[in-house]
Amino acid sequence: MSDGAPAATLHELMRTQRAIRRLRKEPIPDAVLERILVAGALAPSGGNVQPWRVVVVRDAGLRKAIGDLYRPQWAKYGAGSRKGLSALQDDARAKQERMLEAADYLGEHMGDAPVILVVCFNPGHMAITDANLGRPSVVGGGSVYPAVQNMMLAARAEGVGCVLTTLLCFEENAMKNLLRIPPEWHTCGVIPLGFPERGGYGPTSRRPVKKLAYGDRWGESIKI
Amino acid sequence: MSDGAPAATLHELMRTQRAIRRLRKEPIPDAVLERILVAGALAPSGGNVQPWRVVVVRDAGLRKAIGDLYRPQWAKYGAGSRKGLSALQDDARAKQERMLEAADYLGEHMGDAPVILVVCFNPGHMAITDANLGRPSVVGGGSVYPAVQNMMLAARAEGVGCVLTTLLCFEENAMKNLLRIPPEWHTCGVIPLGFPERGGYGPTSRRPVKKLAYGDRWGESIKI
Repeated sequence: MSDGAPAATLHELMRTQRAIRRLRKEPIPDAVLERILVAGALAPSGGNVQPWRVVVVRDAGLRKAIGDLYRPQWAKYGAGSRKGLSALQDDARAKQERMLEAADYLGEHMGDAPVILVVCFNPGHMAITDANLGRPSVVGGGSVYPAVQNMMLAARAEGVGCVLTTLLCFEENAMKNLLRIPPEWHTCGVIPLGFPERGGYGPTSRRPVKKLAYGDRWGESIKI
Repeated sequence: MSDGAPAATLHELMRTQRAIRRLRKEPIPDAVLERILVAGALAPSGGNVQPWRVVVVRDAGLRKAIGDLYRPQWAKYGAGSRKGLSALQDDARAKQERMLEAADYLGEHMGDAPVILVVCFNPGHMAITDANLGRPSVVGGGSVYPAVQNMMLAARAEGVGCVLTTLLCFEENAMKNLLRIPPEWHTCGVIPLGFPERGGYGPTSRRPVKKLAYGDRWGESIKI
């Protein structure tokens, strides 16, 4: 990794890896962007094949075009998410409403983010061991999303806001045409990057370990 | 995160996140294991749903059973990998042979790892936006493998060796029966954990950023 990377510890970074959806237009310095991309390049993948690429979109016209594709997708998805609000209790509802407001902001302003990362993958370079199990396959993601998480952790370390969105898979053909992505490569995530407009990174609400980890068998509490 | 987590920087950890396949039998202290699991719990996921669970297998009989399922799967897969060796140039072949020797070791000794993490996911809790695109889907992995990468980075920070394997998807039914995983949850990764038998973590061979990142459009070199 280049010199100049910040020195916060891993756990401080993970504990505060919030989704940041309100981003400033101010450009991201090249050295900062490079450290974020290097972090992705360092991630492990099946057979060390690294079957992903990232198109780093800074051109204003292309960013606007991506924003224009994203806006109606979020409008539709956000409307669906709002339907679930009334079922939530007050605290959870208020929190979800704040998230949706920020997501609405991103829905309108995706194209204003100074950098948009478009993550691509090639299934022909992957051993997808759960391809034929009669249930949705996720294993291909095991060679892509560790790199995504590395880039997002590195962004957090730099104080650069970001969030992973996968809604633009609904516009995959348009995205491939726009960015001249070859037929055998596909898109699996779009990450707007920018310095935070508001408070930025901070504590997150995640489930405690005891709700996510079992001891020896499913449902058995873990003794640690 | 609990006190006591090591303080190496993010980039030092990422740069040295080797796959470690020769693991000692010595148990992993509870506090170390807990920090690894907490790192997973802190990872982002679509809608913050955290649609994954991890079964933390320490029981010797269950570990042996998992090892017995893994052995023939690796034997078959490793034989396939060896066929490609002759096409490689000397340096690349020697490196690949060392990797395969270590993988053969893991193939024989998976059950001796003091902890085996079995990562599970529930597609019913995911918005899989690339489910119907007529190409392999990976997006579900976007809500699981960031947590996997967090756990593996935390293991690296603790000096605990690990590697992600997905071959046991070929034995998903047997794994589900063994660990009493409910029908609607599936397996998407197995991670043996243990202190390294040999040198442990160190520099890795990954592609440089310029081979993985394009500027604005596919294939265009990025100026950073």
